[in-house]
Amino acid sequence: MQVVTENNSFTVTWKGEEILHHSPDAPFLFVGKGQENVKMFRGNFDIKDYVTERLALPFIQVRNESDSIKIDFASYPNGPSVVTVQLVQKENEVKLVFVKATENINRFWLRLKANKEENVYGCGEQLTHFNMRGKNFPLWTSEPGVGRNKSTYVTWQSDVTGMAGGDYYHTNYPQPTFVSSRKYYCHVETTAYADFDFRNDSFHELQIWEMPKEVVLEGANDFLGLLEKITDRFGRQPELPEWTYNGIWLGIQGGTEVVEEKLEKALAKGVKVGGVWCQDWQGIRMTSFGKRLMWNWQWNPEVYPNLDTKIHEWKEKGIRFLGYINPYVAVEGNLFATAKERGYLALNEENEVYLVDFGEFYCGVVDFTNPEATEWYKTVIQDNLIGFGLDGWMADFGEYLPTDVKLHSGEDPMEMHNAWPTMWAKVNYEAVEESGKLGEVVYFMRAGYTGIQKYNTLLWGGDQSVDFTLDDGLASVIPAALSAGMLGNGLHHSDIGGYTSLFGNKRNEELLLRWTELGAFTPVMRSHEGNRPYDCFQFDDTERSLDQLAKMTTVYTTLASYTKSLVKQNAEKGTPVQRPLFMHYENDEATYDIQYQYLYGKDLLVAPVYDEGVTTWDVYLPEDEWIHVWSGKEYAGGNITVEAPIGEPPVFYRKDSEWADLFGKLKEIK
Amino acid sequence: MQVVTENNSFTVTWKGEEILHHSPDAPFLFVGKGQENVKMFRGNFDIKDYVTERLALPFIQVRNESDSIKIDFASYPNGPSVVTVQLVQKENEVKLVFVKATENINRFWLRLKANKEENVYGCGEQLTHFNMRGKNFPLWTSEPGVGRNKSTYVTWQSDVTGMAGGDYYHTNYPQPTFVSSRKYYCHVETTAYADFDFRNDSFHELQIWEMPKEVVLEGANDFLGLLEKITDRFGRQPELPEWTYNGIWLGIQGGTEVVEEKLEKALAKGVKVGGVWCQDWQGIRMTSFGKRLMWNWQWNPEVYPNLDTKIHEWKEKGIRFLGYINPYVAVEGNLFATAKERGYLALNEENEVYLVDFGEFYCGVVDFTNPEATEWYKTVIQDNLIGFGLDGWMADFGEYLPTDVKLHSGEDPMEMHNAWPTMWAKVNYEAVEESGKLGEVVYFMRAGYTGIQKYNTLLWGGDQSVDFTLDDGLASVIPAALSAGMLGNGLHHSDIGGYTSLFGNKRNEELLLRWTELGAFTPVMRSHEGNRPYDCFQFDDTERSLDQLAKMTTVYTTLASYTKSLVKQNAEKGTPVQRPLFMHYENDEATYDIQYQYLYGKDLLVAPVYDEGVTTWDVYLPEDEWIHVWSGKEYAGGNITVEAPIGEPPVFYRKDSEWADLFGKLKEIK
Repeated sequence: MQVVTENNSFTVTWKGEEILHHSPDAPFLFVGKGQENVKMFRGNFDIKDYVTERLALPFIQVRNESDSIKIDFASYPNGPSVVTVQLVQKENEVKLVFVKATENINRFWLRLKANKEENVYGCGEQLTHFNMRGKNFPLWTSEPGVGRNKSTYVTWQSDVTGMAGGDYYHTNYPQPTFVSSRKYYCHVETTAYADFDFRNDSFHELQIWEMPKEVVLEGANDFLGLLEKITDRFGRQPELPEWTYNGIWLGIQGGTEVVEEKLEKALAKGVKVGGVWCQDWQGIRMTSFGKRLMWNWQWNPEVYPNLDTKIHEWKEKGIRFLGYINPYVAVEGNLFATAKERGYLALNEENEVYLVDFGEFYCGVVDFTNPEATEWYKTVIQDNLIGFGLDGWMADFGEYLPTDVKLHSGEDPMEMHNAWPTMWAKVNYEAVEESGKLGEVVYFMRAGYTGIQKYNTLLWGGDQSVDFTLDDGLASVIPAALSAGMLGNGLHHSDIGGYTSLFGNKRNEELLLRWTELGAFTPVMRSHEGNRPYDCFQFDDTERSLDQLAKMTTVYTTLASYTKSLVKQNAEKGTPVQRPLFMHYENDEATYDIQYQYLYGKDLLVAPVYDEGVTTWDVYLPEDEWIHVWSGKEYAGGNITVEAPIGEPPVFYRKDSEWADLFGKLKEIK
Repeated sequence: MQVVTENNSFTVTWKGEEILHHSPDAPFLFVGKGQENVKMFRGNFDIKDYVTERLALPFIQVRNESDSIKIDFASYPNGPSVVTVQLVQKENEVKLVFVKATENINRFWLRLKANKEENVYGCGEQLTHFNMRGKNFPLWTSEPGVGRNKSTYVTWQSDVTGMAGGDYYHTNYPQPTFVSSRKYYCHVETTAYADFDFRNDSFHELQIWEMPKEVVLEGANDFLGLLEKITDRFGRQPELPEWTYNGIWLGIQGGTEVVEEKLEKALAKGVKVGGVWCQDWQGIRMTSFGKRLMWNWQWNPEVYPNLDTKIHEWKEKGIRFLGYINPYVAVEGNLFATAKERGYLALNEENEVYLVDFGEFYCGVVDFTNPEATEWYKTVIQDNLIGFGLDGWMADFGEYLPTDVKLHSGEDPMEMHNAWPTMWAKVNYEAVEESGKLGEVVYFMRAGYTGIQKYNTLLWGGDQSVDFTLDDGLASVIPAALSAGMLGNGLHHSDIGGYTSLFGNKRNEELLLRWTELGAFTPVMRSHEGNRPYDCFQFDDTERSLDQLAKMTTVYTTLASYTKSLVKQNAEKGTPVQRPLFMHYENDEATYDIQYQYLYGKDLLVAPVYDEGVTTWDVYLPEDEWIHVWSGKEYAGGNITVEAPIGEPPVFYRKDSEWADLFGKLKEIK
């Protein structure tokens, strides 16, 4: 990466192209003052900004120091320095370290140079647009929205009844980092509210609501190399435990007896099962939204009698037990009482415990800025979960930190809100690590932010609607996996069948069957009953569904050795298991806008069927020798149409793959 | 009004209170650069702004000249002048004349001083909020929206199918002028896009997308005096023709025979009729929206056989004939052909006639920046309407000037869009005036902007939905009348029964009955069949409805001498016929937020029933001696509840009114 400074300009180039260029008539930096207005309702945010001033800083003074360059930015010729930035270059990386800014400035807009053909990816886990060019992306962890498309009835009703409809950019996991098709990434080190704007032909504009600590630009020769650098920075996931390759994690609720019954039913039909995942291991409550959990994180023996012995019986049969936890404690529970007494909960302006509305029940926020509270919560995980015998859990939420909360550290909640998911992940990570269980226990999160890569053992796509909509249904988890993967979250999966059933939207059999197909080509298969189990089709409701589950879990276990090799590669190099096509076919321009197909490793191409009522499917194959898994038919590349009945999702393998024999076995599975 | 200038500050006070105060830490002026993005679909606009710079101008240099003061504004101490403003004082008026601004600046934000208790009114015709404090108001003439409330089904469907749902600020008639409860008004002389922001406790911020020509501040001792000054500036309406007091203008469509039939039916039931208003006098077309007109402005003898003789027969019976015109010509008609040939139509970028989509049909825009086109269109009105015998018409539309049109004058359509309604009004005004028919012929408009006061003989509230919703139904025409009245549009009325029936929303009998009650207490009564006549209840559908119409038109004609006196007062002094309660009870603080009751002149208080299925109504009476019109019961003031069955709208008169005898007669009407 090249840096050139002149009297009144400076330039950063990568592979001969400008990626940053400042001159008086095209300034890199704008600063100003804004007053935000933040409304939160149940994890949904309405954030408005009133910008009273926005100054361009066109005029610079370059000071060459021994090991770096300092640049002072001014708003008029010979004016005082408004912002000082230190430029630090190291191999293929350039850092812009923000040294100081004039008091009262709380808005920063940075412009990088773009070109018209450039595509950009990342910004956390994006569910609607994998390629973000042409849109802006507010980066603020929140509920992702129900419906996520203003033209649908479900979105409209969600908006009207609880400002919950969401839009294309809402996500549990935002991150102020993007990857350019020009083979560099840009990361802004900040936890403040940000908005990355990719709408302009000639520049990207990054808005940040504080002085960022630094902006990092780093390049590589190819995308695999770039991912290695990205994960050098943010960390990588450990490998998944061996037991997960035994089969699906069946999402079951209702108590020991129900779990046993459903498990036996599945096993009897030949379903391969790796674990049972029982959210309600710690009790349930009913709300108008549906079945919700008790939020007091310990075994509930009323709902799960004998679980303390059963858990070990199942383990011996190769079936692990997984539970659920999140970073909030319900007012009714003993954990709340303890935390309140010890001062471990965040406070409100009256110095009382801040109660967050989670939908007809209230919880305290365990204050992770308090080291004692953090240690205590780790012991809750260690004692109540790991100690009890759980081999995994959903580490849910993390997005709800209110912006008017008082924290132990005195830090501004506007700047801690986005930091929270990674702090929550770290609590889980350390609890597991200190128990010596990394690689044996696995937890999965939907919330994220910078640094989640290291601390979260598995990402899941959040709460999709139980439907075939592009923006919030089955299809949406594919761009989610690809975008998160571009930032080094290489292990992704989703609720098989989706989760949210509201306003008359109910899961049908076909949706579950198609989602099962998708799940078989992700590193972990896990099903979910949904928020309204009785309104939604369940895996054991029909013979056909059990048969499909048996077939697809067998596909999954058959592929286990291949998948394991991908998971290992991810742990070592940060190469995601699910990859965009351009990662291996970078000269094929058509691949850069494909977001509903992916490479599963280098050798499998997966094009999940995400529409209802279809039996054929259109697929784009990059130029190579491809073999259709079910028919054995060969293709050379281009746009093709294949048969895609239920049970035969469009999947292709590379003819000259070292795994070709293994892939060849898939068509034998009935 | 006092102006005080010091070295680095200046202040304007009115009645001892600061209404403008500039100092370096509280600047009056901010300027910047913006790039707008305007989408239009059938008169609905989606306007976004990307503000790249917004500079405060805290530093001033005051130059005292012979008859005025010039102030130079700079962004930093001793910096160059960015904007120069000339301060001109004249009695109770202060003008800030903008003399020059640095090139490339296209956004201006002006701050006036506010206090927390202050209320503000005006900004054209506002249908949702009469008191605008606490909201911002984009000022851009457009369709007003169907539903106008994002939580309703009709709004959502309108948005989804045609970006037509609208919001609280959408209006056919915006104007960059507001009236403060501190008894001054502020007018910004501009036709650019503007947004007046009244959300802040300590200031009002006025945003304008060009350098405004001038900002006028003028005060008076009371609201009546203020209205006189306002209408000295913008003009006043002439009195209404004598014939209108004969009764309602019945909105009827369908041809000569249908009109005759419906008219006779009404007259036979004792309905008082002043005219028949036949939109379709020039032909109809059917669209998916409903019944639409032909848009070729001349008598259509197929639909209206013998109208040329009939029109005079009716006139002899005291029934005038009213029609319809707007400033667009449909591609199918001979007017379009003539205008195209002569170059009277606005062009697109390819120098072809710009065709505007009006909903399944296309029209040319008569280019009023071309004096010849304007003269020609006046002759169309004079020959085809006045000459044919029409005594009135709806002068519809004016809000659709596209922002990418090429105009004859070369002017920027972004700056002519808002100017168009007044230009259209002026065409009508001059056509009538030059025919010597002012005061005999009357036309009514929904679109407006600065100056419409002089050129429009009667305002109408636009296209309400046929329902009881606050934001787009019956109730909404009351704040519409009051806000327009505050800026000198003293003659207002609405479609009795409303207009828009979409997405299953159909007019029922009760709505028509209640709207008829409201209509009786406005200067003109006029009914509308609606866009889907066959889906909507019509005035002659039941005996009950005909009886109600007979009673309410008799109320109207009984009040004629009183109403005439109000209309005269409006013509002479600009006092609106429908007035907010605070206009005569300025010491009663409760009156400043009342927007669904009004004074009809000084002596009648009207509180229309705007809810469905009610028979009593809550009314607020300011302290005075009030007599309930129907029961004769006396009230002293305060919150009361009265019986309000159909046919007895809550109306009260002042006991010591000189018109008390006349008002006393109303209760005799059956």
